[in-house]
Amino acid sequence: MQDFQKAIDYVNRHIQLTDEEAAYFTSLLRITKVKKKQYIVQPEFVCKYRSYVVQGAMRAYLIDNNGQDHTIAFAIEDWWISDYSSFIFQQPATLFVEALEDSLLIQIDYNAEQLLMETHPKFEKFFRIITQRSFAFLQQRMLSNLSKSAEERYDEFMKKYPSIAARVPQYTLASYLGFSTEFLSKIRNKKLKKLN
Amino acid sequence: MQDFQKAIDYVNRHIQLTDEEAAYFTSLLRITKVKKKQYIVQPEFVCKYRSYVVQGAMRAYLIDNNGQDHTIAFAIEDWWISDYSSFIFQQPATLFVEALEDSLLIQIDYNAEQLLMETHPKFEKFFRIITQRSFAFLQQRMLSNLSKSAEERYDEFMKKYPSIAARVPQYTLASYLGFSTEFLSKIRNKKLKKLN
Repeated sequence: MQDFQKAIDYVNRHIQLTDEEAAYFTSLLRITKVKKKQYIVQPEFVCKYRSYVVQGAMRAYLIDNNGQDHTIAFAIEDWWISDYSSFIFQQPATLFVEALEDSLLIQIDYNAEQLLMETHPKFEKFFRIITQRSFAFLQQRMLSNLSKSAEERYDEFMKKYPSIAARVPQYTLASYLGFSTEFLSKIRNKKLKKLN
Repeated sequence: MQDFQKAIDYVNRHIQLTDEEAAYFTSLLRITKVKKKQYIVQPEFVCKYRSYVVQGAMRAYLIDNNGQDHTIAFAIEDWWISDYSSFIFQQPATLFVEALEDSLLIQIDYNAEQLLMETHPKFEKFFRIITQRSFAFLQQRMLSNLSKSAEERYDEFMKKYPSIAARVPQYTLASYLGFSTEFLSKIRNKKLKKLN
């Protein structure tokens, strides 16, 4: 149970679990250790798990037909990650989800999640809330990509997620923001000059 | 009750409502008629309603800092539309939602929706499912924008949503697909030539 406490704490921020409910919830979870560069989701395979990061850093990305890399999401401690389209519909994934560091994950598989909601309907509320947040996050990201300049997107990311920016490889941050690593260096150098 | 039957049918596809539950649900809804070009959501104002289209066609879009128009979503009969980020968090909207035709909507306001879920927790499941679908839809759209050519995106849209493509103004379709009206005409002419 100790190992799962962080996931229980996370859920308790949205719904209140009794001890029995927490125990049942954790009986459906599993702990997974992944090595840096290891994949937990790959295109063509159905994504079986929703993953909570206890420790480490993960990245979801798409490789387009030209071989270009597009980072869709990061997840560090206390974040969830998956290829949600694949997970929700149990269809083949389009994304890779890889470990950027050695990481410790708590995972729940699709069938267990369905069972959890059937037997304990209050989890419907939990998954409704976290899905709404993911949706709003994705919409804001899409609108930001459409309406903001590269530099504005960079500034926004640095302000909102400084701990992620400080931790992930430069090329993943550039590919999240939608520009090249060279362009990212250019923006950073410009900012440094302003500071000096 | 008659007027609300379509919304009840929609909900019943995901959860089973008793007559009492359906009656309570409809007591929280309202019917709204909107004229073509009328707005139901505008930037800076908090989006109060989630709207179901009984009849008509609606469009959600963003105007960027350069005055360019980006269509985010369409909704025709039996679809829901809103600025969900604004609705979910009850914060000022960033989108416009306008009527492309005279339309008939069924609306539920934010507080009523919260009350509905509190008093009838089975609606948690309904809103969880429709949010998951919206999320998957948005993710697929984002991935498609990142990884597919303009022409591939056009083909995909025509295949998936022929009834929307046939009905909405050309400039809104072009702005959904992320290119100019001129480019859309070019693609269409090319397709026509191939057919002849």
